[in-house]
Order: sequence, then structure tokens, then C-alpha cells
Amino acid sequence: MELKEILNTMHQEDIDSLIVLKPENIAYLTGFKPTTSSVLILKDESVLFTPKMEIDDASAQSGIQIEELKSMDGIKKCLKGTLGIEDSMTVSTYKKLCNDFETEVTDIIESSRILKSDDEVKSIKKAIEIAESSLLNTDISGTENKVAAELEYNMRIKESMKPAFETIVASGIRSSLPHATVSSHNLEKPVVVDWGAVWNNYCSDTTRTIIESEKHTEIFEIVLEAQKKAIKVIKPGIKASYVDKVARDIIGEYGYADSFIHSTGHGLGLEVHEKPSISKNDQSKLQKGMVITVEPGIYIKGEFGVRIEDVIHVKNRSTVLNKMKKKLDF
Amino acid sequence: MELKEILNTMHQEDIDSLIVLKPENIAYLTGFKPTTSSVLILKDESVLFTPKMEIDDASAQSGIQIEELKSMDGIKKCLKGTLGIEDSMTVSTYKKLCNDFETEVTDIIESSRILKSDDEVKSIKKAIEIAESSLLNTDISGTENKVAAELEYNMRIKESMKPAFETIVASGIRSSLPHATVSSHNLEKPVVVDWGAVWNNYCSDTTRTIIESEKHTEIFEIVLEAQKKAIKVIKPGIKASYVDKVARDIIGEYGYADSFIHSTGHGLGLEVHEKPSISKNDQSKLQKGMVITVEPGIYIKGEFGVRIEDVIHVKNRSTVLNKMKKKLDF
Repeated sequence: MELKEILNTMHQEDIDSLIVLKPENIAYLTGFKPTTSSVLILKDESVLFTPKMEIDDASAQSGIQIEELKSMDGIKKCLKGTLGIEDSMTVSTYKKLCNDFETEVTDIIESSRILKSDDEVKSIKKAIEIAESSLLNTDISGTENKVAAELEYNMRIKESMKPAFETIVASGIRSSLPHATVSSHNLEKPVVVDWGAVWNNYCSDTTRTIIESEKHTEIFEIVLEAQKKAIKVIKPGIKASYVDKVARDIIGEYGYADSFIHSTGHGLGLEVHEKPSISKNDQSKLQKGMVITVEPGIYIKGEFGVRIEDVIHVKNRSTVLNKMKKKLDF
Repeated sequence: MELKEILNTMHQEDIDSLIVLKPENIAYLTGFKPTTSSVLILKDESVLFTPKMEIDDASAQSGIQIEELKSMDGIKKCLKGTLGIEDSMTVSTYKKLCNDFETEVTDIIESSRILKSDDEVKSIKKAIEIAESSLLNTDISGTENKVAAELEYNMRIKESMKPAFETIVASGIRSSLPHATVSSHNLEKPVVVDWGAVWNNYCSDTTRTIIESEKHTEIFEIVLEAQKKAIKVIKPGIKASYVDKVARDIIGEYGYADSFIHSTGHGLGLEVHEKPSISKNDQSKLQKGMVITVEPGIYIKGEFGVRIEDVIHVKNRSTVLNKMKKKLDF
């Protein structure tokens, strides 16, 4: 289905052969996610080149013609006309494969991936469900590292293949660093937990902050207000940058504009970070079928930080896919 | 130290500015491994561009000049002369950064990374130690997935930041697929476990196969003989391809040439797969200071597979860095 649409778009853009290298794009189009370098050539007769040891898996999981990947020359022989290439193609691959052809960088597949099918949303929801129940079964005590270990174990047991990204358990002063991952420090409040599961190759991405003091609560309420109002304005036709502005303005009104040091969110799917970017630079309009995160935060240098993140399905209005409370009683 | 050597090599190769994007290469040169897109420009006055939220970490962990990454134009202004680029630079970054310059694809940093310092070997050994003791503390029963979950939990608790790659626990007929990762099947013998820890950004990579029947033992002994003999020939000056040939010939002598469907090994360090490749295509010579894996395997379609993998430090002869027995009594 998707494959046929992509081929139509290729024809419209005068692309004869599209070279697909990103594993997520190959997974999207064939159902098979390669673990080693594989090359999908989309054209009237598409073919997936994959190393010998992945041929059985590829044949079982995809409906496409499979050939053994032996050399770049073998692939080159099956290319014709104008080549479409992904913007993530490396310079070295470009030189090996594309030097004798006209090429055009295209985001046909990424553009198609922006809008999620019902099945894709189902997989994202299942990943969220695994992640949430795993946190609720985790004993939030001991070191940051021990909490992350237990949380990841719980997700694994529920058949998440791996964490969707490096799990963050950042507590006390470390919560003021948005990308702090984990340390061997004992937990202190607040505790920022930012974690995700993977189901059927689809990711979840959620953040909760466990607070204690009055000052924590004050900041928590500001972040929560920013998140709620940003989620409320989400609907088809609204600019991504406007959602960012709504969250940023509220945090600014309370005097914390300089403490919100990242963008408000991002698309979510086969990758943790996809289009659109919910940031001031993304002028694209939200569309029905997108799945995005909304994750404002305030980071007070040398003290602590608070972030709250949920996953939103853009329908006629916004639908929050998370079920978990914002304030956790640990 | 390394940085100075790289600058010298750049001068010799008439490269004025080297653009470093690979996180592993940035970690190698600065001690700081970025979690978001960062750009290191090596030149007489080197500078690392990193997003606002990583500036504190970058400053704390590296001794290099840090600037906030705001736009590609900002980076472009600090480039001069002939640019060196990594072969993994993407076509889109190339167009944004390099269009107005002469460029040369170079592997200066990867080449330097081939030879490990004592500190690097120490980190790899520590990663191996974590991985081995974690497996020995794992209860090898239940489903493949449960074993992987427990193994990864144990590594986490011992402060491995994450699995070095997707953990493989492939049992019964699934052991015949070299890249099978895990399933929710209950364990059957043989069980191939291929796993790694990460310490200080350095990876381990080991495989053990737990066997039961006579047929398993027969195949196990062939693989073990191939591995031992391949390890024995390792010394400086020997071609990587020769080590592959030694392992392959022995497996061939027993009639299983077609069942050894991957290369014999690879370099190991900040990445799980580095140069050299221990395969018939790599004619480069082993050098003192390399760290490589040796991992022959036999995969009998529809029946089972056996793989044994250890990490070798190339000194005057070969030194096996693993301490774990080849045959495990589970």
C-alpha cells in the first residue's frame, strides 16, 4: 500500500530509482528492519540487497524480492535513470553508488512516515503501555543506575526489544541537566525519569518528574500549565512553531524563559526523533495522523529541573496517548 | 596527546580544517561523547560546537574550546582552507557546510583509533569483566527474552551504560541464525549468547554457546579448533585476511565451509565494529596495539548453530582478554 504511493510520488518527481539505506525506512516499506547494512532499491521492480546471513529473516518478514548483497557494483547494475537519495546517505556511499548518475536528495519516505496509520498508532500505544506499566512496577529507590536497570528489565520482560533511547534517571541537582542519563548517585528529589520502550520497531517517549519540596511544586505547576495549554491548541492546521510558542510564552510569563533550553517536542514513530520538530524554526502545519511529543521543562542551574512529556496523537483535536498520571506518588 | 598527532597528520596531508561529526571520534579526541548533534572543528585553534543543553557537560569533560551550536552558518565561518571530512558525513551536511570549499575524505581519526592505548585496553577489559560476571550471575532458564533481560540488568547494575549492541540469546533452531537477537521462546539447547557491556564508552563483545547433545559437541569442537588456531597465528605483521583464512580452512576441512556465513572478526573499541575487518577482503596487516574479536561459527540450516567469540589484544603475540571458559556448565 505505502509502497505503491511512494512509487507514484517518485514518478511525479521524475525519480526512476530510489536508494533506501536507513533501516527505519526499510522497515517502514518492507516490514523487515535490517540489523546490518542493507540497500533497498525502489523502482518498477523493487529489490532489497541484504547480506547472506539476513536473507532468511528478510524473506520471511517482507514481501519484496531479496538478493544477496555482495558488492556495490552489483547494486549499481540495477540502478537506472535519475536516482533519488536520502539526505542521510554518506559521502562515501554517494561516491561508490551515484557518481555516474543524476541524483536528487528527496524526503519522500520521511514525508510519508509523518502521518501514522492506525496500525502504527497501535504499536506506539503498545510501546507506551509497556513503558508506563514498567515504571509503575519499578522500585524508585537506591541509585539512579539501579532504578534505570530495574525499569529497563521490566520493559524487556514485557518484550520491548530495547530501550527506545538512553534512559534518563536524573535526580537532585542532576535533574537540572536535560541530557544527564544516569549516575551511581543515590536518589534525591526531584527525580526526572525520561524513558521509552520499543514495540514492533515503534518507540515511546515519556517523562515524569517526582517532586517533594514547595519550590519543586511551584516549578512543576508552571511546566504542567505550559504542557496542558500547548496540548490544548494542537489540531490540524496549527503551525508546529505555534505549539512551541504557547508553551514557551507561559514559562516566560513566570520569568523562566531562559530556563527552558530545548524545543517543546518532536514527531515519534520508528525513530524517537522524527518530523515535525515542535520548535520555533518549524513552520510546517500539524496534520491529522501525526504523533508528536510535548515536553516543556524548566532547568534552574545549580538547583534542579522539571520536565513533563506525553505523546499526542493529532486527530480532529489532540488525543493524549499516555494513561499515566502527571504527579507520581513514589 | 592524540590531538597533537592528528594535527600533525593533517598538516602532512594538507588538510587545514578537519570536520568531526561521529560521536565516537569526538569522544576519542575530547573525552566528551555528545548525545546530540555536535561538530568538532580541528585546526590550529580547535573548537567544539554543541547545543546549549550540552555545553556544561562538554566543558566539564573536555579541555577544548566550546561554542554553542546555533546554525551551520556559524560553523562555516570558522572553516578555512582545505577541509578534511569523515566518510560518514551525510550528503545533506556536505551541501550545507562544504560546498564552497575544497574537500578531501580522510580516515585520519579512524586510523589513529585502530591502535589502542593502555588506557583504552583497560576500559575494554573492564567492559569484558562486567559482561562476563553478568552472564555468570544470570539464571539461564525460562525464555530467551527473560535471559536477555536479566543479563542486561546485571550489566546495568555493574554500571555498563547500555548493552554494547542488541543482545543475542538464540536457542534451539534459532541458534542457526547468526543475527537472531531474542524471542519469547522457551530455551532449548544449544543457546547462543552474544553480548557486550560498555565501560567509559568502550565496548566488549563475546559469544558463548551452551550445548547439550553429541552433535552439538561435535560442531562445538570444530568451531573451537578454528578459533584457537586463528588466535594462535595472530601477531604483528600477519594479514587480517590470513587470520580469517586459518579459521575458514579448518571449518572447511570438516566439510562445513558453506555453514560459516560471516567474517571471522573485527576491531573493537569505542564502536563494536571497527577496523580492521578479519575477513578475506581485508589485506591490511595486524599491528601491535590492535584489539580484535575472533568469532568463527557454524550454522546448520534448520537445525542449530554454534559460535565462539573472544577479544584479542595484539601484542608481540596474541593475548586473549576474556577470562571466561569456552564451555559453560548451565
